[in-house]
Amino acid sequence: MIIITQPAVTDAQIDHIVARIEEFGLRPQVMRGETRVVIGVIGPDDLIRGKPIAAIPGVESVVPVMKPYKLVSQENGSLPPPVSIGGVKIGSGQRVVLISGPCSVESKQQLLSIANSVKNAGARVLRGGAFKPRTSPYSFQGLGEDGLRFLAEARAETGLPIITEIMDTRDLPVIEKYADCLQIGARNMQNFALLKEVGRSRLPVLLKRGLSATINDLLMSAEYVLSEGNPNVLLCERGIRTFETMTRNTLDLNAVPILKAKTRLPVVVDPTHGIGLRDYVPQMALAAVAAGADALMIEVHNEPERARSDGEQALRPEIFTDLVRRIRAVAEAVGREL
Amino acid sequence: MIIITQPAVTDAQIDHIVARIEEFGLRPQVMRGETRVVIGVIGPDDLIRGKPIAAIPGVESVVPVMKPYKLVSQENGSLPPPVSIGGVKIGSGQRVVLISGPCSVESKQQLLSIANSVKNAGARVLRGGAFKPRTSPYSFQGLGEDGLRFLAEARAETGLPIITEIMDTRDLPVIEKYADCLQIGARNMQNFALLKEVGRSRLPVLLKRGLSATINDLLMSAEYVLSEGNPNVLLCERGIRTFETMTRNTLDLNAVPILKAKTRLPVVVDPTHGIGLRDYVPQMALAAVAAGADALMIEVHNEPERARSDGEQALRPEIFTDLVRRIRAVAEAVGREL
Amino acid sequence: MIIITQPAVTDAQIDHIVARIEEFGLRPQVMRGETRVVIGVIGPDDLIRGKPIAAIPGVESVVPVMKPYKLVSQENGSLPPPVSIGGVKIGSGQRVVLISGPCSVESKQQLLSIANSVKNAGARVLRGGAFKPRTSPYSFQGLGEDGLRFLAEARAETGLPIITEIMDTRDLPVIEKYADCLQIGARNMQNFALLKEVGRSRLPVLLKRGLSATINDLLMSAEYVLSEGNPNVLLCERGIRTFETMTRNTLDLNAVPILKAKTRLPVVVDPTHGIGLRDYVPQMALAAVAAGADALMIEVHNEPERARSDGEQALRPEIFTDLVRRIRAVAEAVGREL
Amino acid sequence: MIIITQPAVTDAQIDHIVARIEEFGLRPQVMRGETRVVIGVIGPDDLIRGKPIAAIPGVESVVPVMKPYKLVSQENGSLPPPVSIGGVKIGSGQRVVLISGPCSVESKQQLLSIANSVKNAGARVLRGGAFKPRTSPYSFQGLGEDGLRFLAEARAETGLPIITEIMDTRDLPVIEKYADCLQIGARNMQNFALLKEVGRSRLPVLLKRGLSATINDLLMSAEYVLSEGNPNVLLCERGIRTFETMTRNTLDLNAVPILKAKTRLPVVVDPTHGIGLRDYVPQMALAAVAAGADALMIEVHNEPERARSDGEQALRPEIFTDLVRRIRAVAEAVGREL
Repeated sequence: MIIITQPAVTDAQIDHIVARIEEFGLRPQVMRGETRVVIGVIGPDDLIRGKPIAAIPGVESVVPVMKPYKLVSQENGSLPPPVSIGGVKIGSGQRVVLISGPCSVESKQQLLSIANSVKNAGARVLRGGAFKPRTSPYSFQGLGEDGLRFLAEARAETGLPIITEIMDTRDLPVIEKYADCLQIGARNMQNFALLKEVGRSRLPVLLKRGLSATINDLLMSAEYVLSEGNPNVLLCERGIRTFETMTRNTLDLNAVPILKAKTRLPVVVDPTHGIGLRDYVPQMALAAVAAGADALMIEVHNEPERARSDGEQALRPEIFTDLVRRIRAVAEAVGREL
Repeated sequence: MIIITQPAVTDAQIDHIVARIEEFGLRPQVMRGETRVVIGVIGPDDLIRGKPIAAIPGVESVVPVMKPYKLVSQENGSLPPPVSIGGVKIGSGQRVVLISGPCSVESKQQLLSIANSVKNAGARVLRGGAFKPRTSPYSFQGLGEDGLRFLAEARAETGLPIITEIMDTRDLPVIEKYADCLQIGARNMQNFALLKEVGRSRLPVLLKRGLSATINDLLMSAEYVLSEGNPNVLLCERGIRTFETMTRNTLDLNAVPILKAKTRLPVVVDPTHGIGLRDYVPQMALAAVAAGADALMIEVHNEPERARSDGEQALRPEIFTDLVRRIRAVAEAVGREL
Repeated sequence: MIIITQPAVTDAQIDHIVARIEEFGLRPQVMRGETRVVIGVIGPDDLIRGKPIAAIPGVESVVPVMKPYKLVSQENGSLPPPVSIGGVKIGSGQRVVLISGPCSVESKQQLLSIANSVKNAGARVLRGGAFKPRTSPYSFQGLGEDGLRFLAEARAETGLPIITEIMDTRDLPVIEKYADCLQIGARNMQNFALLKEVGRSRLPVLLKRGLSATINDLLMSAEYVLSEGNPNVLLCERGIRTFETMTRNTLDLNAVPILKAKTRLPVVVDPTHGIGLRDYVPQMALAAVAAGADALMIEVHNEPERARSDGEQALRPEIFTDLVRRIRAVAEAVGREL
Repeated sequence: MIIITQPAVTDAQIDHIVARIEEFGLRPQVMRGETRVVIGVIGPDDLIRGKPIAAIPGVESVVPVMKPYKLVSQENGSLPPPVSIGGVKIGSGQRVVLISGPCSVESKQQLLSIANSVKNAGARVLRGGAFKPRTSPYSFQGLGEDGLRFLAEARAETGLPIITEIMDTRDLPVIEKYADCLQIGARNMQNFALLKEVGRSRLPVLLKRGLSATINDLLMSAEYVLSEGNPNVLLCERGIRTFETMTRNTLDLNAVPILKAKTRLPVVVDPTHGIGLRDYVPQMALAAVAAGADALMIEVHNEPERARSDGEQALRPEIFTDLVRRIRAVAEAVGREL
């Protein structure tokens, strides 16, 4: 950590800062420039973290040298271990995995129809929401455990492992009975109680980036899950909130190469929520693969204009089928495969 | 709802849109302009809400006419009922209430010292976190139930009712045993499971605006609480996330008059988190009162440079005491009182 | 245009709104819903635009039906005409054009070296700044007309047409003497005097999107150029400003498919400024091609650590050469060519 | 400046960084922590600024110690000199100055009517646009020199000095003939050619913050004006762009105390553009005074529903008159006067 002192800092203040650092068991190193005094703080990371040094009089700002995360870090050694969702490996470096399905599970028939379609098109994991986070309390809230059962039936019929969202710590036991992967939605990315709870699950966790979460925030939330003992986290970029009003969100593909560089965790991109308009989902899906995504999550609905959620952004099955062909071409162009 | 069709919409598409609207039990009204066709949709709000009309071919965009919220709305009749926190009324229109205390409860002694200070200075409600939402899993996570006990002791000693944060649906019973008001933190503003749970509590709820939540989002989250039967919600502006890096957050005082106009719920401002730098908290507190806030929440710490959280933004007790005097003057200038 | 009236609008207010619309020479159409009155305004676009209808008592909000731009619009008929920069056509739908060169022209030798490198790698247009917009008045401001001369010499030597930035209306004559294309920088995207001036030039204009410009704003700025008589505008996405601090800007690739759908103008992407970190420029360049860009603008420097501007984001020539090969593969995968 | 090296930095890279720093005439100071190497760079500011140190291999990030601005800085000694607009001093620390008038000068009669109204209400400077920056080329662009003449007549009649916007470097001579203060609009805040030009004027400059400009950006733009020799700059907060759609912009009052602390220049707040909705302008004006603004700029129009620009945000004269009374009360409550 580097402490930059105020222009008018006094010697007494510097002495006090130094004393406080030593009191914390750390080693200060004072460096005097032409017009400012800078103090390096040397010592074990864990001691340095979270000390209220900015509150000491005479301190202008504090610059961390170490990253605030550690378990998720690329620097944490070893090759990136792919995360397995019911046997489908994501993050191997070679294969791009397609995750697809409806936004919400609406009925058994709807789900089976879509599950078969996306499987035939080339998807390898099935998504579908049983507990739905909706901005309005008056919107469809999901089928609950019935939805989970239909997902399990779709898995039995198609062989696709399933991923579904968890919204409440109390729901973990019931969801664990059915799902192959837990999804944490963007709005719960900093629901720390939930992060800790899924950190104790045996299932992998797909963690969606919050609408205004920095990349660092996302990594800190992943760190919560890992620090509870669950190493199987997938990071998902799904659009951030900006001033733009012509799209639902702004899919931030910059996050893909940055996350690949900073962390050893697989990176999933959700172009459906990311741009939020079905006409532009394909282009963003192709771009995500070119940017280096390990997997894509794309919503498909057999009858978008009757969908109970997100109809305006879901692809029809035939559009998805055509898109898979185009995704394969781009994947191969960047040395990957589907 | 108003449907704006695409420039190249066909008559067959218009017929299909009209048929779909009628199928939903609504009444379409087609209006042909010089270059575009617009279709009004008339009928009960509840029928219109959430229909995937944007997914119908030929539709370019959909403009809602009605607000998506209803219970929180100013239009919902009757004068704004003040919300009572342990007998202290907020939102009466006349009195500006000061809520103060430390970020985290760190020890019984720390809390009692601060509680007495802020009470003497003029605060009427005590805040303090026992369960702490922290970006890092390695930061202090709060004292849990011990913290709640210390809060109850501080209430017994000072007479100040207490407000504390809830992070997990499972914690409601224990927090209800001690607290006078439940706080939902910014990062949980769209934790819909938690919103529903506190919507069933007998305690009032202080709902903090999320870092990237629009004003509409905040109102929809309040609507969740009200729709479960709890009418006692206080809305709290506490800073949004923008591109600015010189402050921790950007306190959005624009939200104050807008919320006062759109909703009948009391509006609380938290300048401490809002700007995040103790030197500027006083000016933002004064501005919040001038903008029309019903209450302020301001963090005070007796020893900021040893605080276990947010030391850099807490005011020392003597600064707070002086600030209360200045707040009183501004309150009186705008026809209010402390 | 659709007028949504306030919930408590009176009949007298509606009559006044209607009278005002008729006074403007437009035709009102009143539609009464269950709880609100909506008024359609029918008439020629040019009459409707810019009337202060939101200022009329009883009006809650105003929803435009027509786009505010017209010349740039896809709806403006005819196939997209490629824009020619010194004979190199951009926007033909088939070819992806590479524009490359240094951020600033620093010396004749530097420029010639880089120009030859990028030409050999596959670039077809040379970029280089002679007048530099710099955040600080103490930073290198460019070589001025000397820089333009060096650009012309580089064109003579390599055959690459040149693009350079214009910052001042007074500089148009001198820049027109040398350049093949005028660049309007992000910070001048709403410098309307400059837009009008280049709208009277015979040279094409590459218009960069401002840091906080919506897509609509960008199109309106292009409309300024076209409305002065210059139809040759290229739209350039170069990163927007968000809350993220790990990258210099946030390259918004969502803009690519949206712009391709809404306008007939070619779309250029600048991944260099977009993400602002050389290690991640290649991935963003590939993603831009997959998203549908007509051209890429990529900064190359032969000695980044001695660059007088933007050294940290420029690619070395050998990295650029390798990148061109990868771009070609992705272009072919999406049915394009270099 | 502090250089933080990459985790895997080699000794050879450190030697190279050190050599490069010495080559720049600066003094490196290497500090080895537990896991990272940090290098302090000591020497004159002007030498350090703008060196492409982040481009040197092995460098992870670069942390400036010194502020990038100097002339605008509070640290630049001496008490804040008030800026005089035609004899009206702004920034004296005591008096809050009201600047008012229409958005655009539309006619002589309109301007005189409004000028007399705002003067009688208590405004001390008259504003009015003759050259108007409009998002659309089809909107009213201002009366040009006729508008300037009407402003001069209004000054002659009321005694109020006048402020008007400059958009083009070529217009300085004509505007200097009439105006008492030059306004740089938000969209031109980083029009560096224009900043340099007004830096050579004898008139004071009111510099509006750009929609996505950080506080640091604003100060750097002010530095441009000062570095050309014009010390009379007023900084104006007028709303930034965020994700909120319920207001036109987000007035950022956080900027007020920050600017007062960082710079010696007067701070003006424009609540009219800041929130953009007339019903909420008064509350934001009061809050701006409480936050410490030196002056307010508020748009008034005698007939908003016929205004040629910004009708929806202008106050009627009688509302302004009432607001002045309320502003005076708040000013006095914070120890200021009108």
